[in-house]
Amino acid sequence: MADVSVIGAGSWGVALAVLLHSNHHHVTVWSIDPDEIELLDKKREYPAKLPGVFLPDEMQFTTDMKEALTDKALIVLAVPSPYVRSTAAKMKPYINDGQIIVSVAKGIEEETLCTMSQAILQEIPSADVAVMSGPSHAEEVGRGLPTTVVVGADTKKTAEYVRDFFMNTVFRVYITPDKLGMELGGSLKNVIALAAGISDGLGCGDNAKAALITRGIVEITRLGIAVGGRMETFGGLSGIGDLIVTCSSRHSRNRKAGMLIGKGYSMQEAMDEVQMVVEGVYSAKAAKALADKYHVQMPIVEEVNKVLFENKEPSESLKDLMHRDKQMELAVPWDN
Amino acid sequence: MADVSVIGAGSWGVALAVLLHSNHHHVTVWSIDPDEIELLDKKREYPAKLPGVFLPDEMQFTTDMKEALTDKALIVLAVPSPYVRSTAAKMKPYINDGQIIVSVAKGIEEETLCTMSQAILQEIPSADVAVMSGPSHAEEVGRGLPTTVVVGADTKKTAEYVRDFFMNTVFRVYITPDKLGMELGGSLKNVIALAAGISDGLGCGDNAKAALITRGIVEITRLGIAVGGRMETFGGLSGIGDLIVTCSSRHSRNRKAGMLIGKGYSMQEAMDEVQMVVEGVYSAKAAKALADKYHVQMPIVEEVNKVLFENKEPSESLKDLMHRDKQMELAVPWDN
Repeated sequence: MADVSVIGAGSWGVALAVLLHSNHHHVTVWSIDPDEIELLDKKREYPAKLPGVFLPDEMQFTTDMKEALTDKALIVLAVPSPYVRSTAAKMKPYINDGQIIVSVAKGIEEETLCTMSQAILQEIPSADVAVMSGPSHAEEVGRGLPTTVVVGADTKKTAEYVRDFFMNTVFRVYITPDKLGMELGGSLKNVIALAAGISDGLGCGDNAKAALITRGIVEITRLGIAVGGRMETFGGLSGIGDLIVTCSSRHSRNRKAGMLIGKGYSMQEAMDEVQMVVEGVYSAKAAKALADKYHVQMPIVEEVNKVLFENKEPSESLKDLMHRDKQMELAVPWDN
Repeated sequence: MADVSVIGAGSWGVALAVLLHSNHHHVTVWSIDPDEIELLDKKREYPAKLPGVFLPDEMQFTTDMKEALTDKALIVLAVPSPYVRSTAAKMKPYINDGQIIVSVAKGIEEETLCTMSQAILQEIPSADVAVMSGPSHAEEVGRGLPTTVVVGADTKKTAEYVRDFFMNTVFRVYITPDKLGMELGGSLKNVIALAAGISDGLGCGDNAKAALITRGIVEITRLGIAVGGRMETFGGLSGIGDLIVTCSSRHSRNRKAGMLIGKGYSMQEAMDEVQMVVEGVYSAKAAKALADKYHVQMPIVEEVNKVLFENKEPSESLKDLMHRDKQMELAVPWDN
């Protein structure tokens, strides 16, 4: 039993708070929004984001950063990716040397091309920043359905420390040193999920979506290795696993936004309709910039960018992806 | 425009016949069942297996093996895996040296541990046997929805020859020399699809299923490499791609059967309800035998065997899979 805090009261932050509480930790949840904090504190449920999930009386809610961060055994940073850097800057005055912070947002900064843990470290260089990722829709974790994730950290000791806060009979935690590969996989999958949603919105079927996911992880792996991730990571839970759940689940907001775009909505209309942050839209440009920087071919990412930012017709993009030259699937040659 | 034949009038055989016809080939479909042939010939539709898909007047249907096989530029062998060897034996008298046969059934023989192309070659050693596989539910191919597959063959020339019969604007064909890897992936995925269905039937969510798929392809890859397949193949369309579509699609009979088992049906009750051949049930034992033979750990395959053949409770199997020791996800070590 330890004092822990979750910074950010989105669906994922609140679901992790519930998980940490069920593991007998004393949890404080911070949000920048006083109305949100009042709602959670009074109602002990978050109907808009996590309906039906009960928030226990012992869970504390605050807008006070100092209160949220002082003397915590673990801090989970769970604000949406566009707010991670600014939130980390606000946290800095209250963070001790070596404080373990778990980053759970997924994204790549468009300007700096930093992953979230890199951005946090730039703002709070004295922190020990770990990451957690994997196929884990908040709605299911909140309801206690079986889930597996990966924790990445600079040392095995930190990874094990973080793991032991979260692991229980329905939430299985693996550990890895490859933070970078995890974060790249977690961000880039949102771009592929947009593509999968667009394919669904166009009325294509499961065959086309499975092809997009398969070719998508090939693109992600190619870029991820070029940037410095480990190949194995992209075939694991935080790579293909998270990509699969994001592309197929009814809970995925990236897929939902893509579906609307496939049906003819503009990017802005789709984001307005989904009402939550669609991280893939932010990551699409960053993915394209990384692909250019590292000279890696990413045909799906390119088409998503054209649809989002150059008004290309989704059906044209699909056609262009299907009609690329006849070629080998893999770089495996014949002997004869 | 060439004369081609499809041996076997299941949903996949008929869907491929329609595809080949739309590519302007003259197609003959063979089935062992005179009632089936009469139905297809008269009704020009297969309501039970491929409803809504029109079978053109020029398509011929026969129960006569000699008529089906004589002077064909391409023969597609599309009977269910348990009947592939016996059908190949019946075909042999009418097959010329070097005849190209495309095997599209997925399975591993329980007794011999042969893949389908190996079984065909044992029966017809003079044939040039290629394989085709990938995320391709017949229902969608029949309706002309975008689909990608892989053709594997002993020579690039044969692979390209086969590819050019099938490829069109909505059916994209890649080629590879790794027949063995393709066939192992295609068979073993049916066992994982049973597990995914069981998970669905137990009421687990998308998080659990994505974890099963991810850990499933790890098992398949581990075994596949031990048997002689290429690692890249298992990350491709005939590996993870086919696994994804089979585990998530409403069309998948393996998943359906698993779902019923998760809800409490016995294996036989589930197979009776699904009414089509559930190849995963046949492949489960073969997969276990291969794993034992090559000393490869396959925890999901093992649990599926226990549920199917040893009356283990599905919920117990799930619990045992979730509760394995805390461990690293990958064999990637820390430097510090």
